[in-house]
Amino acid sequence: MGVLEAIPGIRVGTADAEIRDNGRDDITVFAFEPGATVGGVYTRNSYRAAPVEIASACPGPARGFVVNSGNANAATGERGVQDAQKICGHFASLLECDATKVLPFSTGVIGEFLPVEKIRTGIDRAYEALSPNRWTQAATAIMTTDTAPKGLSNHFKLGGREAIGTGIVKGSGMIRPDMATLLAFVGTNASLTPEIARRLTFDLAEVSFNRLTVDGDTSTNDSFALVASGIGDHETIHDQSSVEYSELLHGLTPIVRELAVRTVRDAEGATRFITIHVQGGRDVAECMRVAYTVAHSPLVKTALFAGDPNWGRFCMAIGRAGINDLDPYQVSLNLNDVQVAAGGMVADSYREEEGAEVMARDEYEITIDLGRGSSRETIWTSDLSYEYVRINAEYRS
Amino acid sequence: MGVLEAIPGIRVGTADAEIRDNGRDDITVFAFEPGATVGGVYTRNSYRAAPVEIASACPGPARGFVVNSGNANAATGERGVQDAQKICGHFASLLECDATKVLPFSTGVIGEFLPVEKIRTGIDRAYEALSPNRWTQAATAIMTTDTAPKGLSNHFKLGGREAIGTGIVKGSGMIRPDMATLLAFVGTNASLTPEIARRLTFDLAEVSFNRLTVDGDTSTNDSFALVASGIGDHETIHDQSSVEYSELLHGLTPIVRELAVRTVRDAEGATRFITIHVQGGRDVAECMRVAYTVAHSPLVKTALFAGDPNWGRFCMAIGRAGINDLDPYQVSLNLNDVQVAAGGMVADSYREEEGAEVMARDEYEITIDLGRGSSRETIWTSDLSYEYVRINAEYRS
Repeated sequence: MGVLEAIPGIRVGTADAEIRDNGRDDITVFAFEPGATVGGVYTRNSYRAAPVEIASACPGPARGFVVNSGNANAATGERGVQDAQKICGHFASLLECDATKVLPFSTGVIGEFLPVEKIRTGIDRAYEALSPNRWTQAATAIMTTDTAPKGLSNHFKLGGREAIGTGIVKGSGMIRPDMATLLAFVGTNASLTPEIARRLTFDLAEVSFNRLTVDGDTSTNDSFALVASGIGDHETIHDQSSVEYSELLHGLTPIVRELAVRTVRDAEGATRFITIHVQGGRDVAECMRVAYTVAHSPLVKTALFAGDPNWGRFCMAIGRAGINDLDPYQVSLNLNDVQVAAGGMVADSYREEEGAEVMARDEYEITIDLGRGSSRETIWTSDLSYEYVRINAEYRS
Repeated sequence: MGVLEAIPGIRVGTADAEIRDNGRDDITVFAFEPGATVGGVYTRNSYRAAPVEIASACPGPARGFVVNSGNANAATGERGVQDAQKICGHFASLLECDATKVLPFSTGVIGEFLPVEKIRTGIDRAYEALSPNRWTQAATAIMTTDTAPKGLSNHFKLGGREAIGTGIVKGSGMIRPDMATLLAFVGTNASLTPEIARRLTFDLAEVSFNRLTVDGDTSTNDSFALVASGIGDHETIHDQSSVEYSELLHGLTPIVRELAVRTVRDAEGATRFITIHVQGGRDVAECMRVAYTVAHSPLVKTALFAGDPNWGRFCMAIGRAGINDLDPYQVSLNLNDVQVAAGGMVADSYREEEGAEVMARDEYEITIDLGRGSSRETIWTSDLSYEYVRINAEYRS
């Protein structure tokens, strides 16, 4: 995973609250110095989990996050909201701040109540463990079916001074972020107004988590939160058209993009990492629609798994993307630089061995040209393997 | 499968044209007496296969169908259209009618050209075999990955006289009919105007093939065609509000519903047959949207496969169905008559053993009440198993 560097003004602690009996830490707490600002992007699923309801309503500057894995606290009604508030209140009492200054995040099984007492005890121990240097432990503690922790740091220039960002993410199934994704946390020592923090979180999601899909299922708990500690002698950024905003966006983009890419690479049962480019569309919306329809098609995904250049399945998926006036005779398809189809049918130059050679790789690009405009979009996805079925059939057993 | 009964005025023949080397008949021809009328409902995939382009443009009364399995003649451009026309022309010459009176249907691999010469030879042999009593052989000859032939006959009263219908269907993957489905053929000895034949085909699709989904993938070749031979001393039906239209619709509905149900039962790798009811919706569209989102969710489908009452996954899928103002606290969920969730959370009376007992069955009903209206819809679907992945990963090998 590489070294996850400390962010001045942000401390991290983890503990094992035994929410699920797997011998792994499952509680993570983040504590921020006063003055930190927070931005969040949250799931658009109608069943927003209780912690999402609370975190997304947080009015302004925050002092901490409490994260648990093993239980999503979703579809738990009013009791779920009260449970999340109790947990926030408990951590807030340790931080000596108001309960509304702590944001909750949960991930795991949907539809079960949180073990509040266990979590309170876990928070106590995680609080004792707080340190600037525990991002790596946090990357592990937030995992559910992930096979590896995922995190990254990046240094960049901000207003002529050094700045730094560190991010972690969990998630490997129920992944088709819509607005936000999975659980992802990014910290930086930049100084932001609350409004700019929100804007920046949104802009970062748009170039990363909102461009990936594993199985098309949008979680009830998807949350991406950013903390700007303001501990770094940087001027506070007030304006999204400023040079500093742009520097910060470009400094943090490599972190969130790489976290998104690693999420797809670690997708449940994934054996391939596929980049889908759709170009020649009339607008971004139709490029995204075609890209996601191809990425979600079970028949495409099983062909990706098999490494079978059964390119008719790509045509089928493009054709059912719901673009009413699409002319299939204008569509072309490439696997890396091998042209497979042009004018809606197999390309004269195409030899199946060449397609098979590309699709045997662990990682390649599919480029679909719709031949009707100049818009272009890119998303990342994975294949559908026996292992995906096994993991999700056995998830609770 | 039961006995498939002859329909006066309709003859059927099959032959092995060796399109795929599996030792099975792969050509089916239907021949109709002059005066037969035909209705068709076809895929809405933008990549409509060449045979669909031709069949759907057929202007009026038809004399025959030519059906091949093993090759879909889809994504084959202008040459595909010419190939299909050659094949129709060849059968038309045997029937001594105009080529436009023969409708082509193909199913199989997408993106490869038809072996026209082999098919011509196959048509010659199938023509020799024409008989009123070969529906059973046809049900087998149209199969691709289907594990069993699917067909049904039904007798009913029409205007005081006996009438009869016989239908066959193929299809077990790439199945989420949109307007029409897979390949399905129904014959009856009723007498219809061309307009009523079209209307009847549409009405029958709406209560059968347009209510099922296996994997959400809409084929390039989906076609449902109905032939009314008019050989039965029935008055010709001109009016869709007539008693006779209603009698005919009700007489043929058991056939198409049962064909649809058998298609889901025989779905690729399916181990369960699931009926999803969505009620309490504001309109049919939102009921269908919720039903299909649940039915297509890979996480729901793997839970169905596992028999795991992980009902949070149903909530997740309902929540991402895109109903903007859905109030999850009004939603309830039943597995057969076990109430699992009410008011957006687990029902007080629910015990997980009861949910597990239902989901261990091969066949059961999921009822979702959205609590916001009086519309209701029902669809049928299957689970997602290792076997689905195997079949589709190995399809061409």
